[in-house]
Amino acid sequence: MALRAVPLSLTSSLSGASFFQHFVLEENMLEVDCPCVTPEIVLKASGHVDKFTDLMVKDEKTGTCYRADHLLKDFCNEKLQKDLSISPEKAAELKRVLAVLDDLSAEELGAKIKEYGIIAPDTKNPLSDPYPFNLMFQTSIGPSGLSPGYMRPETAQGIFVNFKDLYYYNGNKLPFAAAQIGQAFRNEISPRQGLLRVREFTLAEIEHFVDPENKAHPKFSDVANLEFLMFPREEQMSGHAAKRIPLGEAVSRGTVNNETLGYFIGRVYLFLTRLGIDKNRLRFRQHLANEMAHYAADCWDAEIECSYGWIECVGIADRSAYDLRAHSEKSGVPLVAQEKFPEPREVEKLFINPVKKELGLAFKGNQRMVVEALEAMNEKEALGMKDTLESKGEMEFYVCTLEKNVTIKKNMVTISREIKKEHQRVFTPSVIEPSFGIGRIIFCLFEHSFYMRPSKAGDEQLNVFRFTPLVAPIKCTVFPLVQNQQYEEVAKVISQSLTTAGISHKIDITGTSIGKRYARTDELGVPFAITVDSTSSVTIRERDSKDQIRVNVERAASVVKEVTDGRTTWAVVWSTFPHHSSGSADE
Amino acid sequence: MALRAVPLSLTSSLSGASFFQHFVLEENMLEVDCPCVTPEIVLKASGHVDKFTDLMVKDEKTGTCYRADHLLKDFCNEKLQKDLSISPEKAAELKRVLAVLDDLSAEELGAKIKEYGIIAPDTKNPLSDPYPFNLMFQTSIGPSGLSPGYMRPETAQGIFVNFKDLYYYNGNKLPFAAAQIGQAFRNEISPRQGLLRVREFTLAEIEHFVDPENKAHPKFSDVANLEFLMFPREEQMSGHAAKRIPLGEAVSRGTVNNETLGYFIGRVYLFLTRLGIDKNRLRFRQHLANEMAHYAADCWDAEIECSYGWIECVGIADRSAYDLRAHSEKSGVPLVAQEKFPEPREVEKLFINPVKKELGLAFKGNQRMVVEALEAMNEKEALGMKDTLESKGEMEFYVCTLEKNVTIKKNMVTISREIKKEHQRVFTPSVIEPSFGIGRIIFCLFEHSFYMRPSKAGDEQLNVFRFTPLVAPIKCTVFPLVQNQQYEEVAKVISQSLTTAGISHKIDITGTSIGKRYARTDELGVPFAITVDSTSSVTIRERDSKDQIRVNVERAASVVKEVTDGRTTWAVVWSTFPHHSSGSADE
Repeated sequence: MALRAVPLSLTSSLSGASFFQHFVLEENMLEVDCPCVTPEIVLKASGHVDKFTDLMVKDEKTGTCYRADHLLKDFCNEKLQKDLSISPEKAAELKRVLAVLDDLSAEELGAKIKEYGIIAPDTKNPLSDPYPFNLMFQTSIGPSGLSPGYMRPETAQGIFVNFKDLYYYNGNKLPFAAAQIGQAFRNEISPRQGLLRVREFTLAEIEHFVDPENKAHPKFSDVANLEFLMFPREEQMSGHAAKRIPLGEAVSRGTVNNETLGYFIGRVYLFLTRLGIDKNRLRFRQHLANEMAHYAADCWDAEIECSYGWIECVGIADRSAYDLRAHSEKSGVPLVAQEKFPEPREVEKLFINPVKKELGLAFKGNQRMVVEALEAMNEKEALGMKDTLESKGEMEFYVCTLEKNVTIKKNMVTISREIKKEHQRVFTPSVIEPSFGIGRIIFCLFEHSFYMRPSKAGDEQLNVFRFTPLVAPIKCTVFPLVQNQQYEEVAKVISQSLTTAGISHKIDITGTSIGKRYARTDELGVPFAITVDSTSSVTIRERDSKDQIRVNVERAASVVKEVTDGRTTWAVVWSTFPHHSSGSADE
Repeated sequence: MALRAVPLSLTSSLSGASFFQHFVLEENMLEVDCPCVTPEIVLKASGHVDKFTDLMVKDEKTGTCYRADHLLKDFCNEKLQKDLSISPEKAAELKRVLAVLDDLSAEELGAKIKEYGIIAPDTKNPLSDPYPFNLMFQTSIGPSGLSPGYMRPETAQGIFVNFKDLYYYNGNKLPFAAAQIGQAFRNEISPRQGLLRVREFTLAEIEHFVDPENKAHPKFSDVANLEFLMFPREEQMSGHAAKRIPLGEAVSRGTVNNETLGYFIGRVYLFLTRLGIDKNRLRFRQHLANEMAHYAADCWDAEIECSYGWIECVGIADRSAYDLRAHSEKSGVPLVAQEKFPEPREVEKLFINPVKKELGLAFKGNQRMVVEALEAMNEKEALGMKDTLESKGEMEFYVCTLEKNVTIKKNMVTISREIKKEHQRVFTPSVIEPSFGIGRIIFCLFEHSFYMRPSKAGDEQLNVFRFTPLVAPIKCTVFPLVQNQQYEEVAKVISQSLTTAGISHKIDITGTSIGKRYARTDELGVPFAITVDSTSSVTIRERDSKDQIRVNVERAASVVKEVTDGRTTWAVVWSTFPHHSSGSADE
């Protein structure tokens, strides 16, 4: 983990202003800021302590660690691309391995590594068998050494364990969402691909809590007509390409599981394209059945194409009630919502009443475990037992906690369906989670925003980042055309107005030629340059068109402010103010 | 470490908008975002691995840990306050112990604990001797287990190790500042005082790099006339109280070491009071000589008075060149700045040339240590040696790394002063560091902003937070006066305009009485409430005065926006728009 600084401005304009405006304000979301250091019990409940692992192999002599699946993947890809002598059968086999790579167990991976004779790429030494390595950074909380903790691998768990307070804060009403932006930590075995796989990164996560029986979204119609590249499961399985599908159609056909999930897919599309991501290099890919967690109802990744291929930058998942249930169970605190009925409703309910006396006589010290297992039966199991007991008088029943079957007799439990009046429905909300890898989005934004244009002299290529005014870390530059005290004074006055307006900017009073100064700021992706060439009016230049307008000194800051805030556009400004011809100044 | 969420909005409006605008934009600072997980070597260089410790004692039977100084402090305070039988001599002794508490070594603390018979407060068991406990959360980077790392205990080190890039980015010019806002982690032995001493917290740190030979600040005159409570070292030592001193005077008299330090003290004062900190409960306290790090030139804490006493919320220190030097030495990468001279200058320079052959003969394997010690002499030491060698032919010389004196003879070193032409000056910049504990400021802001007022009915007290529009997490509420579809439509239109304007707000369409809804939002510290009582115009109510104006529906959002942005004030708004009398609505 190198201690390199990331210029914060782009992260902050992206995760701060844009994300806040586009999601938090727009949907009236709650915001929270939970700690990074997380007690073990929270991550036990979420499953991370037991399952957040990658399979690792070690160089048996040097101890260098590798991700087992990466080695196998690299081996297969290289064989397929470079070894012209392999048979069609062998090629088909390697392709099959690549397709199921994510599903292989430690044993299966180990067997393949042995079979193919894969060795340590750096030393050619033999490799150990694969074994799981937990990706969380471990630490110890407090001075005693008795309270293990981990750096959070995602921000979401903080929102789940605070569900009760958030629900209360929202007036005990569903649906609502809570958002969190912060650091997440994953102790990757081998960070690679530049900024795409790092050990510490900024996540922006939204947990939208919704009634599982009603996942309609009141604002879905706002996004229903959007049409963009979608890559449903079926298209992937049948080897087709991603295709443009209207979002409304994808939801109504059931390709996307529900309206709320669809709404967020649409909002993520708008977010990314407004930031400046090329819509032709953005697709929404549905998880295959084997990729998706067993509890998830549906999951789509916003993938952006860059020089490393199609990169997952946002995951949008319907995680059903899994997370809240897991924390309820571990903590004993019910994380549930209530729907109060306007009038009491008659509901047919299943009652399982274990007869403790009889069970006690039969199972002695194991009574409690049997009672719990009986009470934990779902409706189908209970009705099956009722039938069997009525017809046969007894049945074999598996008790997990005892790890064996016991014989339940008719007198040990009564199972009945009764009509009951209910005043409310208590349920565990479902969670729809859009989760944004801010660093990955920024990386792709760099690639999609970069272009080169010839200098006027034609002797060199000039670099430009076409950052939109919304995301550009520096919104504006201020240049006195020539070194001259009067112009510098004007530049300082404009700089002060920009500061007051909250516009980040750079003032450059060096005597460098104006063309060079434009080229420098184009390379930083600054959208507007104000050049002071008189004491009464100045020019404003737009980066990509290189068009210039002339405005009064007093108006300069406010024009930049209005375009930057999105209250107007450069096109409108261009049609409003007198144009200025740059002559030969602008290379 | 409880996993409680902090409502982010206040943190983000405070550390984001306000801090960014007041410091980063105003001074054109660079912004960085460095990782939290930090390789050990960085914190070795900074001294944290060896010295970032508190002295701890353990309950010898249960293993419960306590901070040794806290136990001694509590013992002394309790004796002084509750034991009426102690002699004046004893009281004087206890007061002396409290005064030097921070200076006591482990042995001295242990001796006092034994002498006073202090035992574990919870169990009355005996205590261990005090021993140092490092306050950093330790972890391991990567899968090998061979790269120890720590969660950063402050954000500053990330800026120091990136100095070279930041200096380059600033066009190789001084002075400049870099700012960073992020999490810091300290594994406190016993967190206490609510939100004031926690194990994870948000820090905002500014590192302002400046030429040590010129610490003047061009904008000092902007703050020179400020006058506020200052508590210089001398006043503390002589038992006087803090007093109002004009900042310009404090700097010109040398009470504050230099203009740049003074400038930031003034800017911090403006920042805190603009947030809503009571200026009568804010003081700047200078560190006593024994509190200050040996390398620091001067250090002042902005202390805010709250129910826990005077709390350090911002530290403003001139750390001299210590940090950059420490990282230069450890990394071997010079972290320096250059000042190019317009014309080459003739400089008299000291040359120390150890004669390695003679030194090798005399000191064999220790030669290198002696050479290094000779070369490390400062001017005074070197000239002293030159004199002694010329007069006596030899002298005793202490070599730190050998921990002993060696005899240096005249033939072992030549020391001379020569005139040399220099084209530039290379130096290690000084660092002036304002460091903000955002959580502590928020805690004090809660206390300073809270008040109660009687309800109109007079039967209860209503709670109010007087958050300024700048920091209030929710800027505005929107209420239809009565439940009515037309009014709800208007409320939604206004809500949409507020969203577009970036104003966080809550819309409440419940039928609750308007008085109750006002009381609710007062308790949340929302400065403005828009009430829809017609389809053409609405009222805007200001929280503290409860005054209401009437504006057209179309203007409502923009009026709130202008006051919130600080472009106008409520007083101006109040004098511009027609007033509305609330009748009995507002409790």
